[in-house]
Amino acid sequence: MEINPQTLDQREVYKLLIGCVVPRPIAWVSTSDEAGNYNLAPYSFFNAAGSNPPTLTIAINYSAAKSGRKDTLHNILTLGEFVINIVSEETAAAMNETSADVPADVDEFALAGLTPAPSRAVRPPRVAESPVSFECTLHTSVPVGEGPGSSTIVIGIVRHIYLRDDLLNERGYVQIDRLRPIGRLAGSAYCRISDIFDMPNRRS
Amino acid sequence: MEINPQTLDQREVYKLLIGCVVPRPIAWVSTSDEAGNYNLAPYSFFNAAGSNPPTLTIAINYSAAKSGRKDTLHNILTLGEFVINIVSEETAAAMNETSADVPADVDEFALAGLTPAPSRAVRPPRVAESPVSFECTLHTSVPVGEGPGSSTIVIGIVRHIYLRDDLLNERGYVQIDRLRPIGRLAGSAYCRISDIFDMPNRRS
Repeated sequence: MEINPQTLDQREVYKLLIGCVVPRPIAWVSTSDEAGNYNLAPYSFFNAAGSNPPTLTIAINYSAAKSGRKDTLHNILTLGEFVINIVSEETAAAMNETSADVPADVDEFALAGLTPAPSRAVRPPRVAESPVSFECTLHTSVPVGEGPGSSTIVIGIVRHIYLRDDLLNERGYVQIDRLRPIGRLAGSAYCRISDIFDMPNRRS
Repeated sequence: MEINPQTLDQREVYKLLIGCVVPRPIAWVSTSDEAGNYNLAPYSFFNAAGSNPPTLTIAINYSAAKSGRKDTLHNILTLGEFVINIVSEETAAAMNETSADVPADVDEFALAGLTPAPSRAVRPPRVAESPVSFECTLHTSVPVGEGPGSSTIVIGIVRHIYLRDDLLNERGYVQIDRLRPIGRLAGSAYCRISDIFDMPNRRS
């Protein structure tokens, strides 16, 4: 099947992208607005980039409910700071609660029964229930497109890392059976990471 | 555990990032150089961004073996075109073969016994054995940092999509049990997507 995406409605293109680019890691992004109100929302167009400086990227889509700009993006561009918290199986349901479109002054920490913990390097709090939190400052934001279906790619530099004490083994590697992350699939589907296999690295 | 990444070697930071940002989707990137030589290599700092225009991002790390710039990045910046192929369980071993650091003139298609198929909108070929291929043109590249551990974030616009005919159901949704994607974890670990659960969407 050969598809020219320009002939499709952007919602059909979106369905193909979220169905094919899987599994996606989840950034649970906490931010603060100018008045100090907290915001918390999940984004699965998320990944690492480099390690020097430590770099993470998230893409935030246009929101018709928010006149284009989601609260998370507004807050990142305004304050230049955000925290990316990692979602584990234990916090999956709470994460899902924070994905609702609610007014900007609604605190999703309170909505989902979560605890904001003070960050060390940035003003927005981390999620105390998350096993890992990356405190970030904004490096660059790259808008791509305009209107429904458009997105802004946010590039952040990690300034501080919180790691739950039990996550690392004695050699300093994160243990996935302790982290218990979840991955994002299409629609309402997620996956646990239980079906693991190894292939020897070819790259040095 | 509280960690200031500036106090760590970038390789230790890398270990934390690839251990915590999981599971990652895999972009199997095919490119061509000025002479028409093919290159093919996997990158797991990959995700979708928007759907209008359809946008994909990959981050390509500094390569000491290549004086900094991997062949994939060189080719993308030179030709402005690339193809992101999706890796399924069936092609996992072949994908791993193409992750070796080899000279620029080595054709990883031949190395791994894969078939280059002509693309419709760009010059680099797609992987005929992949269930999905996204033909892309370069929108923006954003270098972050310098030297070991640095990366270049490549933003691509999808111009054409190849989808294997059996992947979509009658409502136009990609069927994950037909796609059978794999996810990237840390070290030499990968995951199959077999342990799936649903949570109702809160976001409109």
